[in-house]
Amino acid sequence: MRLSKMLFVTLREDPAEAEIPSHKLMLRAGYIRRISSGVFAYLPLMLRVLNKVSNIVREEMNATGAQECLLPQLQPADLWQQSGRWDTYTKAEGIMFALTDRRQQEVALGPTHEEVITAVARDMVRSYRQLPTHLYQIQTKFRDEIRPRFGLMRGREFIMKDGYSFHGDMDSLRATYDDMYTAYSNVLSRCGLKFRAVEADSGAIGGSGSHEFMVLAEAGEDEVLYTEDGQYAANVEKAVSLPVDAVPSEFSECKKLETPNTSTIETMAKFLDCSPTQIVKNVLYQAVYDNGKTVLVLINIRGDQDVNDTKLQNTLTNLAANYDASTLLSLEVPAPEAQSKWAAKPLPLGYIAPDIADDYIQKQKNVASKFLRLVDNTAVDLKNFATGANEKGYHVVGANWGQEFELPELVVDVRNATAGDRAVHDPSQQIQTARGIEIGHIFQLGTKYSQAMGATYTDENGKSQPLVMGCYGIGVSRLAQAAVEQSYDKNGIIWPVAIAPYHAVVVVPNINDEAQMAAAEQLYTELNAAGVETLLDDRKERAGVKFKDSELIGIPFRVVTGRSLKEGKVEAVKRANGESVDLALDQVVSTVKQWVDEAVKSE
Amino acid sequence: MRLSKMLFVTLREDPAEAEIPSHKLMLRAGYIRRISSGVFAYLPLMLRVLNKVSNIVREEMNATGAQECLLPQLQPADLWQQSGRWDTYTKAEGIMFALTDRRQQEVALGPTHEEVITAVARDMVRSYRQLPTHLYQIQTKFRDEIRPRFGLMRGREFIMKDGYSFHGDMDSLRATYDDMYTAYSNVLSRCGLKFRAVEADSGAIGGSGSHEFMVLAEAGEDEVLYTEDGQYAANVEKAVSLPVDAVPSEFSECKKLETPNTSTIETMAKFLDCSPTQIVKNVLYQAVYDNGKTVLVLINIRGDQDVNDTKLQNTLTNLAANYDASTLLSLEVPAPEAQSKWAAKPLPLGYIAPDIADDYIQKQKNVASKFLRLVDNTAVDLKNFATGANEKGYHVVGANWGQEFELPELVVDVRNATAGDRAVHDPSQQIQTARGIEIGHIFQLGTKYSQAMGATYTDENGKSQPLVMGCYGIGVSRLAQAAVEQSYDKNGIIWPVAIAPYHAVVVVPNINDEAQMAAAEQLYTELNAAGVETLLDDRKERAGVKFKDSELIGIPFRVVTGRSLKEGKVEAVKRANGESVDLALDQVVSTVKQWVDEAVKSE
Repeated sequence: MRLSKMLFVTLREDPAEAEIPSHKLMLRAGYIRRISSGVFAYLPLMLRVLNKVSNIVREEMNATGAQECLLPQLQPADLWQQSGRWDTYTKAEGIMFALTDRRQQEVALGPTHEEVITAVARDMVRSYRQLPTHLYQIQTKFRDEIRPRFGLMRGREFIMKDGYSFHGDMDSLRATYDDMYTAYSNVLSRCGLKFRAVEADSGAIGGSGSHEFMVLAEAGEDEVLYTEDGQYAANVEKAVSLPVDAVPSEFSECKKLETPNTSTIETMAKFLDCSPTQIVKNVLYQAVYDNGKTVLVLINIRGDQDVNDTKLQNTLTNLAANYDASTLLSLEVPAPEAQSKWAAKPLPLGYIAPDIADDYIQKQKNVASKFLRLVDNTAVDLKNFATGANEKGYHVVGANWGQEFELPELVVDVRNATAGDRAVHDPSQQIQTARGIEIGHIFQLGTKYSQAMGATYTDENGKSQPLVMGCYGIGVSRLAQAAVEQSYDKNGIIWPVAIAPYHAVVVVPNINDEAQMAAAEQLYTELNAAGVETLLDDRKERAGVKFKDSELIGIPFRVVTGRSLKEGKVEAVKRANGESVDLALDQVVSTVKQWVDEAVKSE
Repeated sequence: MRLSKMLFVTLREDPAEAEIPSHKLMLRAGYIRRISSGVFAYLPLMLRVLNKVSNIVREEMNATGAQECLLPQLQPADLWQQSGRWDTYTKAEGIMFALTDRRQQEVALGPTHEEVITAVARDMVRSYRQLPTHLYQIQTKFRDEIRPRFGLMRGREFIMKDGYSFHGDMDSLRATYDDMYTAYSNVLSRCGLKFRAVEADSGAIGGSGSHEFMVLAEAGEDEVLYTEDGQYAANVEKAVSLPVDAVPSEFSECKKLETPNTSTIETMAKFLDCSPTQIVKNVLYQAVYDNGKTVLVLINIRGDQDVNDTKLQNTLTNLAANYDASTLLSLEVPAPEAQSKWAAKPLPLGYIAPDIADDYIQKQKNVASKFLRLVDNTAVDLKNFATGANEKGYHVVGANWGQEFELPELVVDVRNATAGDRAVHDPSQQIQTARGIEIGHIFQLGTKYSQAMGATYTDENGKSQPLVMGCYGIGVSRLAQAAVEQSYDKNGIIWPVAIAPYHAVVVVPNINDEAQMAAAEQLYTELNAAGVETLLDDRKERAGVKFKDSELIGIPFRVVTGRSLKEGKVEAVKRANGESVDLALDQVVSTVKQWVDEAVKSE
């Protein structure tokens, strides 16, 4: 492609709309243009990057025997009602765009395709002899994000590969799941990305096992916890660890003390001159289920620990049946003002006891229909602990489970693992932390969707069984931007060679110099013929502008038909490290081709 | 691909939902599955066909210098308001899906991209030095069709290539338009389709010149008019022709006759014993403009001719400014009951005079704010004609313009050209008719969008000018099905080789026969290695089922490792004509490869 013929516009200034480096650079370098909030036009250079990423994904998927298809983006509401996710996706989480068509039918724009593919499998899969089978697609998806931002990182319209596998049993699912783990690792490696695969929460998709593939970058929205030995990695929503040991309590006798202005763990520990690990902290949440029931939840947790919302959410989702509900709609800490209304006397946060006083429980019936107590693992073994006294300005010290307070029946893990904890698999390993961009997510769904939607097959014994499912997603457009976030410098993007829009650019410093143009034209033709995808910068621009632009758009190799041409040489520059060599004209093609091949192999 | 590993299900019976052969066959052969009205899943075989069509389109587009990009499917309402099409597309024609996002912004699902691309060009194109430039995309589009039907022919979600070119002047636009005419012809030829390029109406897209590419098929929804000499072809909405000559009238004197029960041209001509060409027919329409104005339109046309709604629509759109309006919202024949209400005495259709009586015009003010008379070319030169008398059961004969009736000032061409008419370019050529499926449409838009949206460039003289635009669309998924509609037999699909999902299928009649399997595996591997895309039917099915399926799915070449294997031979069958030859094992690859290459070249 000749740049003189391409709609190619670069910007000198960082656009105001962009916050992180990759977003700024992709706008400045003319890869994308914003059309509306979280919605972008992919310009020709960008589309080439997206196609390269897609093709790598496709190759790795096809190698596992998965078959590419294309499912509709318009999804009828009735399929989502069959799976029970319509309300969650359109109301509770509200991330799905929905509309009413001319026949007054509700239609969604697909953010994911479990429902559609399960309907297809329900129609087509009859016998165990058709299993396992695995279909995938590469497609634009939609999410009505609350806060679209960071360019393609969190858009309302984005490109994903999503795949769905169907099995006769869990063993078969796990085999495909392992293949996908490998395939996704291969994709990220081949795209030249530094990443970690981490244990993850299954979220709204559901199912048992799940891993996320996190591309490491400061601007990442997710926190990854891992150990140096490489044996453990999980995202913060899922991570488990051993907290530091509690300091043995010095309170030998149980008494209630006046402790003014100690509504935080920090002020309380300071006042009592004790470690936060000797405190039982009592945290209130208010859970609303899809049948309208509100449950007031009190969690007892060790004072130095924090409650992890996702873990608590999963715990409460699992308890939904106890409240005749199927889905947890919302979970929040009740506003302090609301809490004090429930009590006879106002009871600010920070003074609640592990069992909260009866009159609070009575009072809270105004807002909540049920009351639930949970204790986190970290608080179970504490002795002679300090905790709230259900009275403003007072705490109890030297308390014990089974004496002053009853231990809740439900012992759970709802604590946030954090850097500095010890690893479960090897307590000598300390938990480390890093920022990551979630690029891929694989799930062992099991029979969640097939049971809800009646997708069955006939097994070897002629018996009808629900299909066992897995699903696997990787963000194509997000991956492309994550690559930039991992690889740029002050002059612009540095594309990994495997996903660069072009491998090389031939820059003509002066297009009025016939020798320069002739040499450039020849190299441009020969490089392309040799499979080195090459741009020709033949624009009527100053040489400096062309050099700057080639750095900004991040083409891996630059060939300049400049001064050394009179000695039959051209300059060849590597974008990644600025390394420059003079090459004889007849060596350019073979040398640059070798650079490309080596780089693609090593990425 | 091994069929044993593919999610591959064929149906014996025609599905009830399908009306035309191609739709039935694509469902039966497992290419598509319906998800909701006009919305389909493309199964793996189908996706391969779509990709082949897309790649042919891409090659032809790239060869013209057009650049591929990808624009968003979510389109903000404000861009459509800028172009003035929001109301037309969401209300009047109502074919655009629209929704309200979580921030209460109106968003459309793109049926076409003039607005988005004009916004991109407005942002990026500054100077004449960037022109011409041409961007295209291959993408899923959406239309909320009133009556989705015929499978992929008229779906609510479908794949299109749409391209948009920008120019400094009309000459440059016409050059690109001609390139597109050639590129589209090449695409259809390479896909193995019989087609005609026809002059077309620009419709809601707008602009001056336009051609449609019609794939010829009985099931086509469009009528194409053409001449045998190949010099003229147009769709019926646009076609012009010379009507047959009028028979000279024998009514020498003007008189009003009682003509009971003659409300149709046929009964009237019979009663008066005259030719329909001696009659002036007077047709009423009611036009509603976007500013709410209703215009009652009376058209005088020769009795044997019919009014063409599209031509009339265009005429009335061009007159919009006369009514302080910008768009025609609707055009319909007023219901007979409504008409009779306007008159003092009821006046049924069939008795209206060329000028309609004054009291009707007075009365119609109840429903219409304006009255407009038009005369079609065909009625202008009639002498001593018969026509309505503005009274039920009465007609006038021997009437003349300028005597009994005033000739309307606006002389227009709103007649339907039909088979049997004579061609304008050569009256010795008779107009022929054929059914067609509209696959492509190219438009010279001019400055319609750039002016409305303020997309300008600076010309050689430093002066700001509106960009001159063209746009070019081709239906990828519709083309794929049109190919089936043109090429099938009682046993199934016969794909043109260039867009067949696979070139060949190796059928193993008995997979328990080791020699058969070994030969098949070898041929399968070697054919694929030679670039012949080959399926292996290694399913545990009877030979008859495999033969039937291979015919049904329409793979061009079938290789059978059957009986003749003991003589070192296999049977090779051409799907198109059933021709069968026995080939020595070592000749199979070269022979089939030659068949493929020859077929792709000749299509």
